Amino acid sequence: MHCPDQKGIIAEVTQFIHKNNGNIIYIDQYVDRIQQAFFMRVIVESEFMRTPFEVFKASFKSEIEERFQLNCSFYLAEEIPRVAVFVSKYDHCLYDILSQQRSGKLACEIPFIISNHKDLSFIAEQFKIPFYHIPVTKENKKQAEDQQLMLLSKHKIDSIVLARYMQIVSSRLVDAFPNQIINIHHSFLPAFPGAKPYHSAFDRGVKIIGATSHYVTEDLDAGPIIEQDIVRVSHEHEVSDFILKGQDLERIVLLRALKQHCERKIMVYNNKTVVFN
Amino acid sequence: MHCPDQKGIIAEVTQFIHKNNGNIIYIDQYVDRIQQAFFMRVIVESEFMRTPFEVFKASFKSEIEERFQLNCSFYLAEEIPRVAVFVSKYDHCLYDILSQQRSGKLACEIPFIISNHKDLSFIAEQFKIPFYHIPVTKENKKQAEDQQLMLLSKHKIDSIVLARYMQIVSSRLVDAFPNQIINIHHSFLPAFPGAKPYHSAFDRGVKIIGATSHYVTEDLDAGPIIEQDIVRVSHEHEVSDFILKGQDLERIVLLRALKQHCERKIMVYNNKTVVFN
Amino acid sequence: MHCPDQKGIIAEVTQFIHKNNGNIIYIDQYVDRIQQAFFMRVIVESEFMRTPFEVFKASFKSEIEERFQLNCSFYLAEEIPRVAVFVSKYDHCLYDILSQQRSGKLACEIPFIISNHKDLSFIAEQFKIPFYHIPVTKENKKQAEDQQLMLLSKHKIDSIVLARYMQIVSSRLVDAFPNQIINIHHSFLPAFPGAKPYHSAFDRGVKIIGATSHYVTEDLDAGPIIEQDIVRVSHEHEVSDFILKGQDLERIVLLRALKQHCERKIMVYNNKTVVFN
Amino acid sequence: MHCPDQKGIIAEVTQFIHKNNGNIIYIDQYVDRIQQAFFMRVIVESEFMRTPFEVFKASFKSEIEERFQLNCSFYLAEEIPRVAVFVSKYDHCLYDILSQQRSGKLACEIPFIISNHKDLSFIAEQFKIPFYHIPVTKENKKQAEDQQLMLLSKHKIDSIVLARYMQIVSSRLVDAFPNQIINIHHSFLPAFPGAKPYHSAFDRGVKIIGATSHYVTEDLDAGPIIEQDIVRVSHEHEVSDFILKGQDLERIVLLRALKQHCERKIMVYNNKTVVFN
Repeated sequence: MHCPDQKGIIAEVTQFIHKNNGNIIYIDQYVDRIQQAFFMRVIVESEFMRTPFEVFKASFKSEIEERFQLNCSFYLAEEIPRVAVFVSKYDHCLYDILSQQRSGKLACEIPFIISNHKDLSFIAEQFKIPFYHIPVTKENKKQAEDQQLMLLSKHKIDSIVLARYMQIVSSRLVDAFPNQIINIHHSFLPAFPGAKPYHSAFDRGVKIIGATSHYVTEDLDAGPIIEQDIVRVSHEHEVSDFILKGQDLERIVLLRALKQHCERKIMVYNNKTVVFN
Repeated sequence: MHCPDQKGIIAEVTQFIHKNNGNIIYIDQYVDRIQQAFFMRVIVESEFMRTPFEVFKASFKSEIEERFQLNCSFYLAEEIPRVAVFVSKYDHCLYDILSQQRSGKLACEIPFIISNHKDLSFIAEQFKIPFYHIPVTKENKKQAEDQQLMLLSKHKIDSIVLARYMQIVSSRLVDAFPNQIINIHHSFLPAFPGAKPYHSAFDRGVKIIGATSHYVTEDLDAGPIIEQDIVRVSHEHEVSDFILKGQDLERIVLLRALKQHCERKIMVYNNKTVVFN
Repeated sequence: MHCPDQKGIIAEVTQFIHKNNGNIIYIDQYVDRIQQAFFMRVIVESEFMRTPFEVFKASFKSEIEERFQLNCSFYLAEEIPRVAVFVSKYDHCLYDILSQQRSGKLACEIPFIISNHKDLSFIAEQFKIPFYHIPVTKENKKQAEDQQLMLLSKHKIDSIVLARYMQIVSSRLVDAFPNQIINIHHSFLPAFPGAKPYHSAFDRGVKIIGATSHYVTEDLDAGPIIEQDIVRVSHEHEVSDFILKGQDLERIVLLRALKQHCERKIMVYNNKTVVFN
Repeated sequence: MHCPDQKGIIAEVTQFIHKNNGNIIYIDQYVDRIQQAFFMRVIVESEFMRTPFEVFKASFKSEIEERFQLNCSFYLAEEIPRVAVFVSKYDHCLYDILSQQRSGKLACEIPFIISNHKDLSFIAEQFKIPFYHIPVTKENKKQAEDQQLMLLSKHKIDSIVLARYMQIVSSRLVDAFPNQIINIHHSFLPAFPGAKPYHSAFDRGVKIIGATSHYVTEDLDAGPIIEQDIVRVSHEHEVSDFILKGQDLERIVLLRALKQHCERKIMVYNNKTVVFN
């Protein structure tokens, strides 16, 4: 939940939970003093026999939400998000996502993979996940998008992860999935946005390269940053070394971001993220 | 030394050294395959009674340098560079430079400090180093520069370190000290060049901040990068936290760059640095 | 404050503060589920005209502390700790502590420096801080300690920082300053406790070296860890490189720990530290 | 190659290569001044029509190797090592190794997987790699080993990677594959060798955890270290968090080590590794 910062809010919320047979097993809050905004994440154990989820939500709405102008999301622990994976030709992020999901370390369902190329269909086969090949050209952009949106809707997709998907996602998709499309950009944003960041980093002679995972917004590579990490390079490394070192970063950074997203630990506010532990 | 890459160069140089009573105690080379450029750093022990330094240099020039189009610099180990420190109001980099120089860990002489403010004169006093207060305003910029150049020339300064000097250095100084002026910029360049980078980093919601030490060129914050480092931040940190965390980075990164510069480990080429171990 | 974990404690404490004219400007809590222990750090703004500090503390004690078996410490913001610095021959940590304290970035008073060697008295002079040379030998250990304890008591010292003090501190000092003596050990503890850790790290062929700041307890290098950091090394580095790289770590790690200690952000529990942001 | 350090060795080797129609496309050397040992790695392009590989090796042996007491290994670029993977129940390292090998980023063949449990056979199936289930108990240890050795020999295995294989490898295997068995240990060695390192790290209250990849020797977790990396933890993390964060380290660190091993970049000397870039 988040709302304008105000006194007594923690006390009110915790009392409500106790009164409604809930037991708080995790609570963390954060106050942005500049924006005067309050953020809180709570995990509650509850006996639903005594207070059903829908009743709980309805009472919370009427007793608390309106009063504090709360912006609140509720999730049942067993409701894990349904995530579609978009890829092109690079396989490192895709392999990481699928294998971690298969191991139970990434709490989501992956109903299908979409790609504008056929190259990685063999990985979808390995993991027995439907693979839709939707080529994108200047001419068919609109139809390709229609097809994507249809699949996303049909499969009740909650979130999309762009696992090195080499196409710019249109505003129709962004609007349909606000703060639900996660991208990995292969630079330390805001340095080197756009195409070929490793080449630009090499040309600039940096001593450190990075990767950035962020939510996709209308502005290219300018959405709320979720996670970043870096690795050291030196004059001895060529562009191809940057790429190899960078790919290890990309998969780690994207996976960290995706895990936190799937575990509902991220709140977006003011084009920034609050990421709870 | 550096030169266009070509065969046999290591063999020729090492043979020359042996023939002239030199004993190689360190040798490292690097080839930039894209630019077809060769770089080498050699440390030689020599009995100068048998081959005086000036004779050695002259023979090297006639026998090797021209033939290979070598670009070569010679330094006697005991000739440490004379470095002028420019500061404004922040003291953290200044304290680090002076205390490490005093401890013998930074191999340079520091004949004086120049500042556009009086605030840090007490530190100069602590370390018994002459302190010149040269205020810089729009009106007196030219005269201030004259005074700086006069002092630099009079004291036979080799290099300048801008230890959070909050003025843009003019092209006259840059031209007079090519690849000899070291700056610390408080961001992970090329992200956030120019003024107030911590504020910009905060506004952008980055998860990592950095500091960059580079040689000063005509283009603001665009010179060859010597050293960079980073520190993690989170949504819990305000701009003031970014500044505090960043200052610890700044002093470490600037000092590392300055040490490598003073130990003649850096070669500049194509707006990049080759930094030998 | 810390206490056994129990329901309602946050609510009770925050209500008490409001009732007594306090305004909470920072609150953070942590629950150790395994030890069933609750930790909280609160910063309160208050109009003392209306509720004086001593009254506030007394009411808190009678109304809250006993009931929840709270273990609670109160500090006025303006009461910064009085810290004695112990050194031997290495100057890098001493320089960092004194210069950061002088800059106002380290919130403590430093009434004096004690050393078993005379080498660093010139730094004490630079900073105009009393320097007591107390040599320690096998024979005079007891008297040296008496002299140290007398000085610590006379100057009402709260905490001690061992800034590469090369003597083992006796149990008399440890008992007199429980969780108040901060040491820097030049390894990544628990690897390489005791003497010459850089030599041991080199012999073992590690690829990363570290530094650890911890509270001193009776057991050598086994007290609660406050802060650690690392730096990468390679086969190209000799022991002397380990030492140089390590010294930069030592001063950074010790200073971070000392700052957090002086800002009362650390709680010790079960030979571990809880470090609030 | 490595040998006792001596003058003229680089010149002799490079001249030999040129004379025998070789073109050096990479050369790097390192001198251990304490051990007086010289190490060099060279990559040569050659027209085999003019000097066949076997002839080249034979001439090198007679002209250079004996004279300098060189310890030299030759590899054809196309001869990639044959690596057997040993696993137990954890899948994160296995998935990383197989997917990176499949992508062409890990230059080896993987003829089979051995496991003392059946759990991960489905991954072998996904990647169509033979999977041998060889249970190990106190009683059958000798026979299990016989079976392993038979498979390793039959498939002409060069190297073994223990991808979180939860059994101690016997001296028979270690002797049969000297400096060819790579292990990942889930701590920052030499801290926390042996069983349950994350639990020990948690109990000690460290602020950083690590992972170490090393060659297996007779002494448990004491072989030459190839690669290490770390991740920060805090008092907020429980053992289960240490494990999750650690697993991301383990797979990255093991993969880096394995890549360098497969690219013949590692030399072992004196229970340490020289790792060329």
